[in-house]
Amino acid sequence: MDRTIAVIGGTGPEGMGLAYRWARAGENVVIGSRDPMRAKEIAAQLASRAGANARIQGMENSEAVAAAEIVVLTVPFSGQAPLLKKLKPSFRPGAILIDTTVPLAASVGGSPVKTLGVWQGSAAQQAAELAPKEVAVAAAFHNISAELLDSEKTVDCDTIICSDDERARSAAAELAGKIPGVRAINGGRLENARIVESITALFITINQKYKVHTVGLRLTGLPLSDPPR
Amino acid sequence: MDRTIAVIGGTGPEGMGLAYRWARAGENVVIGSRDPMRAKEIAAQLASRAGANARIQGMENSEAVAAAEIVVLTVPFSGQAPLLKKLKPSFRPGAILIDTTVPLAASVGGSPVKTLGVWQGSAAQQAAELAPKEVAVAAAFHNISAELLDSEKTVDCDTIICSDDERARSAAAELAGKIPGVRAINGGRLENARIVESITALFITINQKYKVHTVGLRLTGLPLSDPPR
Repeated sequence: MDRTIAVIGGTGPEGMGLAYRWARAGENVVIGSRDPMRAKEIAAQLASRAGANARIQGMENSEAVAAAEIVVLTVPFSGQAPLLKKLKPSFRPGAILIDTTVPLAASVGGSPVKTLGVWQGSAAQQAAELAPKEVAVAAAFHNISAELLDSEKTVDCDTIICSDDERARSAAAELAGKIPGVRAINGGRLENARIVESITALFITINQKYKVHTVGLRLTGLPLSDPPR
Repeated sequence: MDRTIAVIGGTGPEGMGLAYRWARAGENVVIGSRDPMRAKEIAAQLASRAGANARIQGMENSEAVAAAEIVVLTVPFSGQAPLLKKLKPSFRPGAILIDTTVPLAASVGGSPVKTLGVWQGSAAQQAAELAPKEVAVAAAFHNISAELLDSEKTVDCDTIICSDDERARSAAAELAGKIPGVRAINGGRLENARIVESITALFITINQKYKVHTVGLRLTGLPLSDPPR
């Protein structure tokens, strides 16, 4: 299967890190950006780090979406709704949307350790409302340090995946498994994303308190094999 | 120092587990309950398990509060506000209140995997509003499995402590350290308790998905010594 993964907002830190890891894992990755030149620049940088066989291109956001079976949204919350409205006609039928958005107050000039209330309950549910009906949505990758993603290190972090669609949940879990160290946890319905999103705000506080950028989480007490360390 | 720790709601699963662990660690513990007979019964049961030197008594809630330097509140959310109003005159000056309350919708007949919105932002902030002004409040112990607490096992779980008062935060962290395996994490201000409280609802979902009662969390990427395993 030679599917394409579009990372929208792929020139930001979280998007770059995810794109890099998936390109390293042999996936066909497209970086999406408002500015196609910027997308191509970042794609070239990531490609040079990811090795000779890496397949990673840059495109304008709507082209990237049109090219992809899996679309991963990694933009600041303030950009999420306007961008999804714009991108709606570009989704392929049957595409999967993985939303990583955290409704940080910082995205509208507020505090990075506080979240905004989203009418739908979570950024992920807002994404599901704005995406085409036939697009399946999962929420994932909120709590993984962008600094760790954009490195060669094993990422000592679980990702809690929330979705109402098993196909979308499986796709997110499979992509999680492509990042060394990351383990996927079933977090239940998409509406639970409100909790997972808010954990990121708490992690920003904890990073500040401990003067790092690397906090992550592992769930314990589950009948799962130990995560790689 | 021969301080007394009152566990209010100490006949419920979380309260019993905490009381048991602290009694095992040599602390002077009082189980508080509406029903003093029930409190004494549970205290006797826990004492018989905790060993000959365990100091653990049962009292009616307001007597327990009056006897304690540290009051730990472990009641269902629906009981939190009425109980604090009733207990307010009983707090000692300079007492510390550690709130473990999670505003689960189940406490008012709703779902155990959903939370209620609390006007103040969190159950912990409601507790702070209702407690006497001179009582310092910390929020802690929300995410630890009651089943694990009430066992002999090492508890493979961090507890994220939120407080606006360093004395209360230290007391909560010290009590966390008395439970084998539990590690205290500084979660910043009391207002962040809203996130930590909601993690418990997510954990109930995850426990259901994985058919266990033992899910917990460890934070990674922090400059702390490894937790005991």
